Amino acid sequence: MPASPKYAMSGEMNGKIYLVGVGPGNRDDVTPRAARVLKNVQVIIGHKTCLDQLWKIIIGKEVVAGEMTPVERAAVALERAQQGSDVAVVSSGDIGIYAFASTFFNHLKERGLEMDVEVIPGVTVANAAAALLGSPLGHDLAIISLADQATEWGNIKRRLIFAARADFVVVLYNPVGKLGSDRAKEATKILIEYREADTPVGLVTSATTEQEKVLITTLGKIPVDKIETDTLVIIGNSETYIYQSRMITPRGYIQGVGY
Amino acid sequence: MPASPKYAMSGEMNGKIYLVGVGPGNRDDVTPRAARVLKNVQVIIGHKTCLDQLWKIIIGKEVVAGEMTPVERAAVALERAQQGSDVAVVSSGDIGIYAFASTFFNHLKERGLEMDVEVIPGVTVANAAAALLGSPLGHDLAIISLADQATEWGNIKRRLIFAARADFVVVLYNPVGKLGSDRAKEATKILIEYREADTPVGLVTSATTEQEKVLITTLGKIPVDKIETDTLVIIGNSETYIYQSRMITPRGYIQGVGY
Repeated sequence: MPASPKYAMSGEMNGKIYLVGVGPGNRDDVTPRAARVLKNVQVIIGHKTCLDQLWKIIIGKEVVAGEMTPVERAAVALERAQQGSDVAVVSSGDIGIYAFASTFFNHLKERGLEMDVEVIPGVTVANAAAALLGSPLGHDLAIISLADQATEWGNIKRRLIFAARADFVVVLYNPVGKLGSDRAKEATKILIEYREADTPVGLVTSATTEQEKVLITTLGKIPVDKIETDTLVIIGNSETYIYQSRMITPRGYIQGVGY
Repeated sequence: MPASPKYAMSGEMNGKIYLVGVGPGNRDDVTPRAARVLKNVQVIIGHKTCLDQLWKIIIGKEVVAGEMTPVERAAVALERAQQGSDVAVVSSGDIGIYAFASTFFNHLKERGLEMDVEVIPGVTVANAAAALLGSPLGHDLAIISLADQATEWGNIKRRLIFAARADFVVVLYNPVGKLGSDRAKEATKILIEYREADTPVGLVTSATTEQEKVLITTLGKIPVDKIETDTLVIIGNSETYIYQSRMITPRGYIQGVGY
Protein backbone atom coordinates (compact mmCIF):
# COMPACT_ATOMS: atom_id res chain seq x y z
CA MET A 1 0.00 0.00 0.00
CA PRO A 2 1.23 3.54 -0.68
CA ALA A 3 2.51 5.35 2.40
CA SER A 4 0.15 8.25 1.83
CA PRO A 5 -3.02 7.09 0.10
CA LYS A 6 -4.36 10.65 -0.03
CA TYR A 7 -1.79 11.60 -2.65
CA ALA A 8 -1.24 8.17 -4.11
CA MET A 9 -0.21 8.29 -7.77
CA SER A 10 -0.81 5.41 -10.09
CA GLY A 11 2.24 3.23 -10.04
CA GLU A 12 3.50 -0.23 -9.35
CA MET A 13 1.88 -0.32 -5.93
CA ASN A 14 -1.63 0.43 -7.16
CA GLY A 15 -3.79 -1.84 -9.26
CA LYS A 16 -5.67 -0.57 -12.30
CA ILE A 17 -9.38 0.20 -12.20
CA TYR A 18 -11.60 -0.73 -15.14
CA LEU A 19 -15.10 0.71 -15.45
CA VAL A 20 -16.88 -1.83 -17.64
CA GLY A 21 -20.21 -1.65 -19.46
CA VAL A 22 -21.50 -5.19 -20.03
CA GLY A 23 -24.48 -4.44 -22.25
CA PRO A 24 -28.23 -4.64 -21.64
CA GLY A 25 -28.41 -7.98 -19.85
CA ASN A 26 -27.33 -10.90 -21.99
CA ARG A 27 -23.93 -12.56 -22.31
CA ASP A 28 -24.34 -12.28 -26.11
CA ASP A 29 -23.87 -8.51 -25.93
CA VAL A 30 -20.75 -8.44 -23.75
CA THR A 31 -17.90 -7.28 -25.99
CA PRO A 32 -14.64 -9.27 -26.22
CA ARG A 33 -12.89 -6.20 -24.75
CA ALA A 34 -15.11 -6.31 -21.65
CA ALA A 35 -14.87 -10.09 -21.32
CA ARG A 36 -11.06 -9.97 -21.47
CA VAL A 37 -10.90 -7.34 -18.75
CA LEU A 38 -13.17 -9.40 -16.50
CA LYS A 39 -10.99 -12.47 -17.07
CA ASN A 40 -7.79 -10.59 -16.18
CA VAL A 41 -8.69 -8.60 -13.06
CA GLN A 42 -8.57 -9.95 -9.52
CA VAL A 43 -11.67 -8.23 -8.11
CA ILE A 44 -15.08 -7.65 -9.75
CA ILE A 45 -17.63 -5.29 -8.23
CA GLY A 46 -21.25 -4.80 -9.28
CA HIS A 47 -24.95 -5.41 -8.76
CA LYS A 48 -25.89 -9.05 -8.33
CA THR A 49 -28.43 -8.96 -11.19
CA CYS A 50 -25.80 -7.56 -13.51
CA LEU A 51 -23.19 -10.14 -12.49
CA ASP A 52 -25.47 -13.19 -12.74
CA GLN A 53 -25.39 -13.18 -16.56
CA LEU A 54 -21.58 -13.16 -16.45
CA TRP A 55 -20.97 -16.20 -14.27
CA LYS A 56 -19.15 -18.11 -16.99
CA ILE A 57 -16.62 -15.31 -17.28
CA ILE A 58 -16.21 -14.38 -13.63
CA ILE A 59 -16.21 -17.85 -12.10
CA GLY A 60 -13.39 -18.18 -9.58
CA LYS A 61 -12.95 -14.42 -9.15
CA GLU A 62 -13.37 -12.41 -5.99
CA VAL A 63 -16.78 -10.80 -6.44
CA VAL A 64 -18.17 -7.90 -4.39
CA ALA A 65 -21.91 -7.79 -5.06
CA GLY A 66 -23.49 -6.63 -1.82
CA GLU A 67 -26.03 -3.84 -1.47
CA MET A 68 -24.08 -0.60 -1.74
CA THR A 69 -24.66 2.96 -2.89
CA PRO A 70 -22.61 3.99 -5.95
CA VAL A 71 -20.31 6.04 -3.70
CA GLU A 72 -19.72 3.07 -1.38
CA ARG A 73 -18.93 0.95 -4.45
CA ALA A 74 -16.44 3.59 -5.60
CA ALA A 75 -14.74 3.55 -2.19
CA VAL A 76 -14.41 -0.24 -2.24
CA ALA A 77 -12.99 -0.22 -5.78
CA LEU A 78 -10.47 2.43 -4.83
CA GLU A 79 -9.42 0.64 -1.65
CA ARG A 80 -8.86 -2.68 -3.41
CA ALA A 81 -6.84 -1.01 -6.19
CA GLN A 82 -4.75 0.80 -3.60
CA GLN A 83 -4.06 -2.59 -2.04
CA GLY A 84 -2.59 -3.67 -5.37
CA SER A 85 -5.44 -5.54 -7.08
CA ASP A 86 -6.70 -4.88 -10.59
CA VAL A 87 -10.39 -4.12 -10.14
CA ALA A 88 -13.35 -4.07 -12.54
CA VAL A 89 -16.60 -2.33 -11.64
CA VAL A 90 -19.38 -3.46 -13.96
CA SER A 91 -22.62 -1.80 -14.92
CA SER A 92 -25.35 -2.93 -17.30
CA GLY A 93 -25.62 -1.07 -20.59
CA ASP A 94 -22.83 1.45 -21.07
CA ILE A 95 -21.12 2.49 -17.85
CA GLY A 96 -21.00 6.13 -18.98
CA ILE A 97 -24.78 6.56 -19.51
CA TYR A 98 -26.53 7.32 -16.20
CA ALA A 99 -24.15 4.88 -14.60
CA PHE A 100 -21.09 4.40 -12.45
CA ALA A 101 -18.28 6.05 -14.46
CA SER A 102 -19.17 9.62 -13.43
CA THR A 103 -19.63 8.53 -9.81
CA PHE A 104 -16.16 7.03 -9.77
CA PHE A 105 -14.33 9.98 -11.36
CA ASN A 106 -16.22 12.30 -9.01
CA HIS A 107 -15.04 10.22 -6.06
CA LEU A 108 -11.42 10.43 -7.24
CA LYS A 109 -11.72 14.19 -7.62
CA GLU A 110 -13.24 14.70 -4.17
CA ARG A 111 -10.40 12.73 -2.62
CA GLY A 112 -7.76 14.45 -4.77
CA LEU A 113 -6.50 11.10 -6.04
CA GLU A 114 -5.04 10.00 -9.33
CA MET A 115 -5.42 6.38 -10.38
CA ASP A 116 -4.97 4.40 -13.55
CA VAL A 117 -8.55 4.12 -14.85
CA GLU A 118 -9.84 2.70 -18.14
CA VAL A 119 -13.44 2.91 -19.29
CA ILE A 120 -14.77 0.03 -21.41
CA PRO A 121 -17.88 1.03 -23.40
CA GLY A 122 -20.88 -1.28 -23.78
CA VAL A 123 -24.06 -1.65 -25.82
CA THR A 124 -26.54 0.74 -24.21
CA VAL A 125 -30.01 -0.27 -23.08
CA ALA A 126 -31.37 2.38 -25.47
CA ASN A 127 -29.68 0.82 -28.49
CA ALA A 128 -30.79 -2.69 -27.49
CA ALA A 129 -34.37 -1.46 -27.03
CA ALA A 130 -34.28 0.39 -30.34
CA ALA A 131 -33.10 -2.74 -32.16
CA LEU A 132 -36.11 -4.66 -30.79
CA LEU A 133 -38.50 -1.90 -31.89
CA GLY A 134 -37.08 -1.50 -35.41
CA SER A 135 -35.18 1.73 -35.99
CA PRO A 136 -36.69 4.49 -33.84
CA LEU A 137 -33.36 6.33 -33.26
CA GLY A 138 -32.66 7.06 -36.92
CA HIS A 139 -32.40 10.83 -36.43
CA ASP A 140 -31.46 13.44 -33.80
CA LEU A 141 -32.46 12.45 -30.29
CA ALA A 142 -32.51 13.51 -26.66
CA ILE A 143 -31.90 11.13 -23.76
CA ILE A 144 -33.53 12.21 -20.51
CA SER A 145 -33.57 10.44 -17.15
CA LEU A 146 -36.67 10.79 -15.00
CA ALA A 147 -34.80 9.48 -11.92
CA ASP A 148 -36.11 11.46 -8.99
CA GLN A 149 -32.94 11.01 -6.95
CA ALA A 150 -30.68 12.69 -9.46
CA THR A 151 -32.41 15.73 -10.92
CA GLU A 152 -35.06 18.19 -9.78
CA TRP A 153 -38.37 17.93 -11.60
CA GLY A 154 -38.13 21.55 -12.77
CA ASN A 155 -34.93 20.76 -14.69
CA ILE A 156 -36.39 17.60 -16.20
CA LYS A 157 -39.58 19.40 -17.23
CA ARG A 158 -37.57 22.14 -18.93
CA ARG A 159 -35.58 19.55 -20.85
CA LEU A 160 -38.71 17.66 -21.91
CA ILE A 161 -40.23 20.88 -23.27
CA PHE A 162 -37.10 21.87 -25.20
CA ALA A 163 -36.68 18.33 -26.55
CA ALA A 164 -40.31 18.29 -27.68
CA ARG A 165 -40.03 21.70 -29.34
CA ALA A 166 -36.81 20.67 -31.12
CA ASP A 167 -38.61 17.60 -32.53
CA PHE A 168 -36.00 15.26 -31.08
CA VAL A 169 -36.78 11.59 -30.74
CA VAL A 170 -37.02 11.35 -26.92
CA VAL A 171 -35.57 8.44 -24.93
CA LEU A 172 -36.69 8.25 -21.28
CA TYR A 173 -34.54 6.35 -18.79
CA ASN A 174 -35.65 5.52 -15.23
CA PRO A 175 -39.36 6.28 -15.77
CA VAL A 176 -40.42 5.03 -12.34
CA GLY A 177 -39.07 7.12 -9.47
CA LYS A 178 -37.48 5.44 -6.47
CA LEU A 179 -39.01 8.16 -4.37
CA GLY A 180 -42.47 7.15 -5.55
CA SER A 181 -43.08 9.89 -8.10
CA ASP A 182 -45.19 9.41 -11.21
CA ARG A 183 -42.89 11.12 -13.64
CA ALA A 184 -43.65 8.95 -16.67
CA LYS A 185 -47.25 10.16 -16.62
CA GLU A 186 -46.15 13.78 -16.15
CA ALA A 187 -43.61 13.49 -18.99
CA THR A 188 -46.28 12.11 -21.33
CA LYS A 189 -48.57 15.03 -20.49
CA ILE A 190 -45.83 17.51 -21.42
CA LEU A 191 -44.86 15.80 -24.67
CA ILE A 192 -48.44 15.51 -25.91
CA GLU A 193 -48.76 19.30 -25.76
CA TYR A 194 -46.17 19.49 -28.55
CA ARG A 195 -46.70 16.26 -30.50
CA GLU A 196 -49.62 14.50 -32.15
CA ALA A 197 -51.44 11.87 -30.10
CA ASP A 198 -50.68 9.28 -32.79
CA THR A 199 -46.89 9.75 -32.49
CA PRO A 200 -45.40 6.24 -32.21
CA VAL A 201 -44.03 5.23 -28.80
CA GLY A 202 -42.04 2.12 -27.93
CA LEU A 203 -41.84 0.55 -24.47
CA VAL A 204 -39.13 -2.02 -23.90
CA THR A 205 -38.72 -3.72 -20.54
CA SER A 206 -35.70 -5.89 -19.61
CA ALA A 207 -34.32 -5.91 -23.16
CA THR A 208 -32.39 -9.09 -24.15
CA THR A 209 -33.28 -10.95 -20.93
CA GLU A 210 -35.83 -13.73 -20.36
CA GLN A 211 -38.23 -11.12 -18.98
CA GLU A 212 -38.05 -9.02 -22.16
CA LYS A 213 -41.27 -7.20 -23.14
CA VAL A 214 -41.72 -5.04 -26.24
CA LEU A 215 -44.76 -2.86 -26.90
CA ILE A 216 -45.41 -0.36 -29.68
CA THR A 217 -48.16 2.14 -28.96
CA THR A 218 -48.86 5.86 -29.46
CA LEU A 219 -48.33 8.93 -27.32
CA GLY A 220 -52.06 9.28 -26.72
CA LYS A 221 -52.46 5.67 -25.56
CA ILE A 222 -49.38 4.86 -23.47
CA PRO A 223 -50.42 2.25 -20.90
CA VAL A 224 -48.69 3.93 -17.97
CA ASP A 225 -49.35 0.92 -15.73
CA LYS A 226 -47.10 -1.17 -17.99
CA ILE A 227 -44.10 1.08 -17.38
CA GLU A 228 -41.76 -0.61 -14.92
CA THR A 229 -38.52 0.44 -13.22
CA ASP A 230 -36.40 -0.93 -16.06
CA THR A 231 -38.67 0.05 -18.93
CA LEU A 232 -37.13 2.24 -21.57
CA VAL A 233 -39.58 4.60 -23.29
CA ILE A 234 -38.86 5.89 -26.80
CA ILE A 235 -41.13 8.63 -28.21
CA GLY A 236 -40.86 9.24 -31.94
CA ASN A 237 -40.37 12.59 -33.69
CA SER A 238 -42.89 14.11 -36.13
CA GLU A 239 -41.64 11.83 -38.94
CA THR A 240 -41.60 8.52 -37.04
CA TYR A 241 -43.98 5.91 -38.40
CA ILE A 242 -45.06 2.33 -37.79
CA TYR A 243 -44.74 -0.20 -40.60
CA GLN A 244 -45.50 -3.88 -40.03
CA SER A 245 -45.08 -3.68 -36.26
CA ARG A 246 -41.81 -1.77 -36.48
CA MET A 247 -41.20 1.75 -35.18
CA ILE A 248 -39.07 3.66 -37.69
CA THR A 249 -37.63 7.18 -37.70
CA PRO A 250 -36.41 8.24 -41.16
CA ARG A 251 -32.82 9.38 -41.50
CA GLY A 252 -33.46 12.80 -42.94
CA TYR A 253 -35.87 15.33 -44.28
CA ILE A 254 -34.22 16.18 -47.61
CA GLN A 255 -35.36 13.78 -50.31
CA GLY A 256 -33.29 12.32 -53.07
CA VAL A 257 -29.81 12.24 -51.56
CA GLY A 258 -29.52 8.50 -51.17
CA TYR A 259 -31.29 8.10 -47.85
CA MET B 1 -37.87 -17.07 -55.50
CA PRO B 2 -41.46 -16.13 -54.63
CA ALA B 3 -43.84 -15.90 -57.60
CA SER B 4 -44.71 -12.31 -56.77
CA PRO B 5 -41.80 -10.50 -55.14
CA LYS B 6 -43.88 -7.35 -54.66
CA TYR B 7 -46.03 -9.04 -52.04
CA ALA B 8 -43.46 -11.55 -50.89
CA MET B 9 -43.98 -12.61 -47.29
CA SER B 10 -41.12 -13.90 -45.20
CA GLY B 11 -41.15 -17.64 -45.51
CA GLU B 12 -39.10 -20.64 -46.49
CA MET B 13 -38.27 -19.18 -49.86
CA ASN B 14 -36.80 -15.94 -48.53
CA GLY B 15 -33.65 -15.61 -46.52
CA LYS B 16 -33.47 -13.55 -43.33
CA ILE B 17 -31.94 -10.08 -43.24
CA TYR B 18 -29.79 -9.00 -40.31
CA LEU B 19 -28.91 -5.35 -39.77
CA VAL B 20 -25.73 -5.53 -37.70
CA GLY B 21 -23.87 -2.85 -35.75
CA VAL B 22 -20.24 -3.90 -35.37
CA GLY B 23 -19.02 -1.17 -33.02
CA PRO B 24 -16.70 1.80 -33.52
CA GLY B 25 -13.94 0.13 -35.52
CA ASN B 26 -12.12 -2.59 -33.61
CA ARG B 27 -12.74 -6.33 -33.52
CA ASP B 28 -12.61 -6.07 -29.70
CA ASP B 29 -15.95 -4.27 -29.63
CA VAL B 30 -17.90 -6.61 -31.91
CA THR B 31 -20.43 -8.42 -29.71
CA PRO B 32 -20.69 -12.23 -29.74
CA ARG B 33 -24.24 -11.77 -31.05
CA ALA B 34 -22.98 -9.82 -34.07
CA ALA B 35 -20.05 -12.19 -34.67
CA ARG B 36 -22.36 -15.23 -34.63
CA VAL B 37 -24.70 -13.66 -37.18
CA LEU B 38 -21.78 -12.85 -39.50
CA LYS B 39 -20.53 -16.43 -39.21
CA ASN B 40 -23.94 -17.89 -40.07
CA VAL B 41 -25.16 -15.80 -43.02
CA GLN B 42 -24.26 -16.44 -46.66
CA VAL B 43 -23.89 -12.83 -47.82
CA ILE B 44 -22.33 -9.85 -46.04
CA ILE B 45 -22.83 -6.29 -47.30
CA GLY B 46 -21.07 -3.16 -46.07
CA HIS B 47 -18.45 -0.46 -46.51
CA LYS B 48 -14.97 -1.79 -47.18
CA THR B 49 -13.46 0.14 -44.24
CA CYS B 50 -16.03 -1.34 -41.90
CA LEU B 51 -15.50 -4.89 -43.18
CA ASP B 52 -11.67 -4.81 -43.08
CA GLN B 53 -11.60 -5.10 -39.27
CA LEU B 54 -13.82 -8.19 -39.50
CA TRP B 55 -11.78 -10.30 -41.92
CA LYS B 56 -11.19 -13.05 -39.38
CA ILE B 57 -14.94 -13.51 -38.99
CA ILE B 58 -16.04 -13.08 -42.59
CA ILE B 59 -13.28 -14.97 -44.34
CA GLY B 60 -14.73 -17.29 -46.97
CA LYS B 61 -18.08 -15.44 -47.17
CA GLU B 62 -19.58 -13.74 -50.16
CA VAL B 63 -18.90 -10.06 -49.49
CA VAL B 64 -20.52 -7.12 -51.30
CA ALA B 65 -18.41 -4.05 -50.50
CA GLY B 66 -18.53 -1.88 -53.61
CA GLU B 67 -19.36 1.83 -53.68
CA MET B 68 -23.11 2.11 -53.24
CA THR B 69 -25.63 4.56 -51.82
CA PRO B 70 -27.55 3.28 -48.78
CA VAL B 71 -30.63 2.75 -50.95
CA GLU B 72 -28.64 0.72 -53.48
CA ARG B 73 -27.27 -1.36 -50.62
CA ALA B 74 -30.83 -1.95 -49.36
CA ALA B 75 -31.89 -3.10 -52.82
CA VAL B 76 -29.01 -5.58 -53.04
CA ALA B 77 -29.72 -6.95 -49.55
CA LEU B 78 -33.38 -7.41 -50.41
CA GLU B 79 -32.64 -9.08 -53.74
CA ARG B 80 -30.21 -11.57 -52.22
CA ALA B 81 -32.65 -12.44 -49.42
CA GLN B 82 -35.41 -12.93 -51.95
CA GLN B 83 -33.10 -15.34 -53.77
CA GLY B 84 -32.98 -17.38 -50.56
CA SER B 85 -29.74 -16.27 -48.88
CA ASP B 86 -29.44 -15.09 -45.30
CA VAL B 87 -27.91 -11.63 -45.56
CA ALA B 88 -26.15 -9.34 -43.06
CA VAL B 89 -25.71 -5.65 -43.72
CA VAL B 90 -23.09 -4.20 -41.38
CA SER B 91 -22.51 -0.66 -40.20
CA SER B 92 -19.93 0.74 -37.82
CA GLY B 93 -21.16 1.82 -34.40
CA ASP B 94 -24.82 0.98 -33.84
CA ILE B 95 -26.78 0.40 -37.05
CA GLY B 96 -29.77 2.35 -35.69
CA ILE B 97 -27.89 5.62 -35.00
CA TYR B 98 -27.60 7.71 -38.22
CA ALA B 99 -27.07 4.45 -40.04
CA PHE B 100 -28.52 1.84 -42.31
CA ALA B 101 -31.44 0.39 -40.29
CA SER B 102 -33.85 3.26 -41.05
CA THR B 103 -32.83 3.25 -44.72
CA PHE B 104 -33.63 -0.44 -44.97
CA PHE B 105 -37.03 -0.32 -43.26
CA ASN B 106 -37.91 2.70 -45.39
CA HIS B 107 -37.00 0.74 -48.50
CA LEU B 108 -39.24 -2.16 -47.45
CA LYS B 109 -42.11 0.25 -46.81
CA GLU B 110 -41.73 2.00 -50.17
CA ARG B 111 -41.85 -1.34 -51.95
CA GLY B 112 -44.71 -2.64 -49.77
CA LEU B 113 -42.70 -5.70 -48.78
CA GLU B 114 -42.55 -7.73 -45.61
CA MET B 115 -39.34 -9.60 -44.82
CA ASP B 116 -37.87 -11.34 -41.78
CA VAL B 117 -35.52 -8.66 -40.37
CA GLU B 118 -33.50 -8.66 -37.14
CA VAL B 119 -31.53 -5.68 -35.85
CA ILE B 120 -28.33 -6.42 -33.89
CA PRO B 121 -27.26 -3.45 -31.73
CA GLY B 122 -23.64 -2.38 -31.40
CA VAL B 123 -21.42 -0.14 -29.27
CA THR B 124 -21.97 3.37 -30.64
CA VAL B 125 -19.16 5.67 -31.72
CA ALA B 126 -20.45 8.15 -29.11
CA ASN B 127 -20.04 5.67 -26.26
CA ALA B 128 -16.59 4.61 -27.46
CA ALA B 129 -15.51 8.26 -27.71
CA ALA B 130 -16.97 9.03 -24.28
CA ALA B 131 -15.03 6.14 -22.72
CA LEU B 132 -11.78 7.57 -24.11
CA LEU B 133 -12.59 11.03 -22.75
CA GLY B 134 -13.62 9.88 -19.26
CA SER B 135 -17.33 10.16 -18.54
CA PRO B 136 -18.77 13.13 -20.44
CA LEU B 137 -22.22 11.53 -21.03
CA GLY B 138 -23.11 11.14 -17.34
CA HIS B 139 -26.33 13.13 -17.58
CA ASP B 140 -29.09 14.08 -20.05
CA LEU B 141 -27.83 14.56 -23.59
CA ALA B 142 -28.78 15.44 -27.15
CA ILE B 143 -27.30 13.77 -30.21
CA ILE B 144 -27.34 15.93 -33.34
CA SER B 145 -25.99 15.17 -36.80
CA LEU B 146 -24.56 18.04 -38.82
CA ALA B 147 -24.68 15.98 -42.04
CA ASP B 148 -25.63 18.38 -44.79
CA GLN B 149 -27.14 15.70 -47.00
CA ALA B 150 -29.76 14.66 -44.46
CA THR B 151 -31.16 17.72 -42.73
CA GLU B 152 -31.66 21.37 -43.60
CA TRP B 153 -29.47 23.79 -41.67
CA GLY B 154 -32.51 25.61 -40.27
CA ASN B 155 -33.67 22.42 -38.52
CA ILE B 156 -30.20 21.67 -37.17
CA LYS B 157 -29.77 25.23 -35.91
CA ARG B 158 -33.11 25.08 -34.10
CA ARG B 159 -32.10 21.83 -32.44
CA LEU B 160 -28.71 23.22 -31.39
CA ILE B 161 -30.40 26.21 -29.77
CA PHE B 162 -32.96 24.12 -27.88
CA ALA B 163 -30.28 21.63 -26.79
CA ALA B 164 -28.10 24.48 -25.54
CA ARG B 165 -30.97 26.13 -23.66
CA ALA B 166 -31.94 22.79 -22.08
CA ASP B 167 -28.36 22.37 -20.81
CA PHE B 168 -28.02 18.98 -22.50
CA VAL B 169 -24.59 17.52 -23.05
CA VAL B 170 -24.39 17.83 -26.86
CA VAL B 171 -22.95 15.12 -29.10
CA LEU B 172 -22.26 16.16 -32.71
CA TYR B 173 -22.05 13.48 -35.42
CA ASN B 174 -20.84 14.15 -38.98
CA PRO B 175 -19.30 17.57 -38.23
CA VAL B 176 -17.77 17.95 -41.69
CA GLY B 177 -20.34 18.26 -44.46
CA LYS B 178 -20.00 16.21 -47.63
CA LEU B 179 -21.42 19.17 -49.52
CA GLY B 180 -18.54 21.33 -48.30
CA SER B 181 -20.30 23.22 -45.54
CA ASP B 182 -18.58 24.42 -42.40
CA ARG B 183 -21.25 23.40 -39.94
CA ALA B 184 -18.93 22.55 -37.04
CA LYS B 185 -17.83 26.19 -36.87
CA GLU B 186 -21.42 27.40 -37.13
CA ALA B 187 -22.56 24.99 -34.41
CA THR B 188 -19.81 26.20 -32.08
CA LYS B 189 -20.88 29.81 -32.64
CA ILE B 190 -24.46 28.94 -31.64
CA LEU B 191 -23.52 26.95 -28.54
CA ILE B 192 -21.17 29.61 -27.20
CA GLU B 193 -24.07 32.06 -27.07
CA TYR B 194 -25.63 29.88 -24.36
CA ARG B 195 -22.62 28.29 -22.64
CA GLU B 196 -19.44 29.54 -21.00
CA ALA B 197 -16.31 29.66 -23.17
CA ASP B 198 -14.56 27.35 -20.68
CA THR B 199 -17.15 24.56 -21.08
CA PRO B 200 -15.17 21.35 -21.65
CA VAL B 201 -15.26 19.87 -25.15
CA GLY B 202 -13.93 16.51 -26.30
CA LEU B 203 -12.89 15.68 -29.87
CA VAL B 204 -12.39 12.02 -30.70
CA THR B 205 -11.37 10.92 -34.19
CA SER B 206 -11.38 7.28 -35.37
CA ALA B 207 -12.06 5.90 -31.86
CA THR B 208 -10.56 2.43 -31.16
CA THR B 209 -8.64 2.30 -34.47
CA GLU B 210 -4.92 2.78 -35.13
CA GLN B 211 -5.69 6.34 -36.26
CA GLU B 212 -7.39 7.21 -32.95
CA LYS B 213 -6.97 10.81 -31.75
CA VAL B 214 -8.34 12.21 -28.49
CA LEU B 215 -8.34 15.90 -27.58
CA ILE B 216 -9.90 17.68 -24.61
CA THR B 217 -10.35 21.42 -25.07
CA THR B 218 -12.96 24.10 -24.30
CA LEU B 219 -15.83 25.60 -26.24
CA GLY B 220 -13.94 28.88 -26.70
CA LYS B 221 -10.84 27.18 -28.06
CA ILE B 222 -12.04 24.36 -30.32
CA PRO B 223 -9.40 23.86 -33.03
CA VAL B 224 -11.88 23.63 -35.90
CA ASP B 225 -9.14 22.57 -38.30
CA LYS B 226 -8.67 19.38 -36.26
CA ILE B 227 -12.26 18.30 -36.82
CA GLU B 228 -12.32 15.60 -39.48
CA THR B 229 -15.12 13.69 -41.22
CA ASP B 230 -15.14 10.98 -38.58
CA THR B 231 -14.52 13.20 -35.55
CA LEU B 232 -17.10 13.01 -32.81
CA VAL B 233 -17.54 16.26 -30.86
CA ILE B 234 -18.89 16.19 -27.29
CA ILE B 235 -19.75 19.52 -25.63
CA GLY B 236 -20.26 19.41 -21.86
CA ASN B 237 -23.22 20.81 -19.92
CA SER B 238 -22.91 23.56 -17.30
CA GLU B 239 -21.68 21.05 -14.70
CA THR B 240 -19.09 19.23 -16.82
CA TYR B 241 -15.51 19.56 -15.54
CA ILE B 242 -12.01 18.41 -16.37
CA TYR B 243 -10.05 16.49 -13.75
CA GLN B 244 -6.65 15.02 -14.54
CA SER B 245 -7.16 15.04 -18.30
CA ARG B 246 -10.62 13.48 -18.05
CA MET B 247 -13.87 15.12 -19.13
CA ILE B 248 -16.58 14.33 -16.59
CA THR B 249 -20.29 15.19 -16.38
CA PRO B 250 -21.73 14.57 -12.91
CA ARG B 251 -24.75 12.29 -12.60
CA GLY B 252 -27.07 14.73 -10.92
CA TYR B 253 -27.71 18.07 -9.34
CA ILE B 254 -29.25 16.99 -6.03
CA GLN B 255 -26.51 16.38 -3.48
CA GLY B 256 -26.42 13.68 -0.89
CA VAL B 257 -28.43 10.91 -2.51
CA GLY B 258 -25.59 8.51 -3.13
CA TYR B 259 -24.29 9.92 -6.40
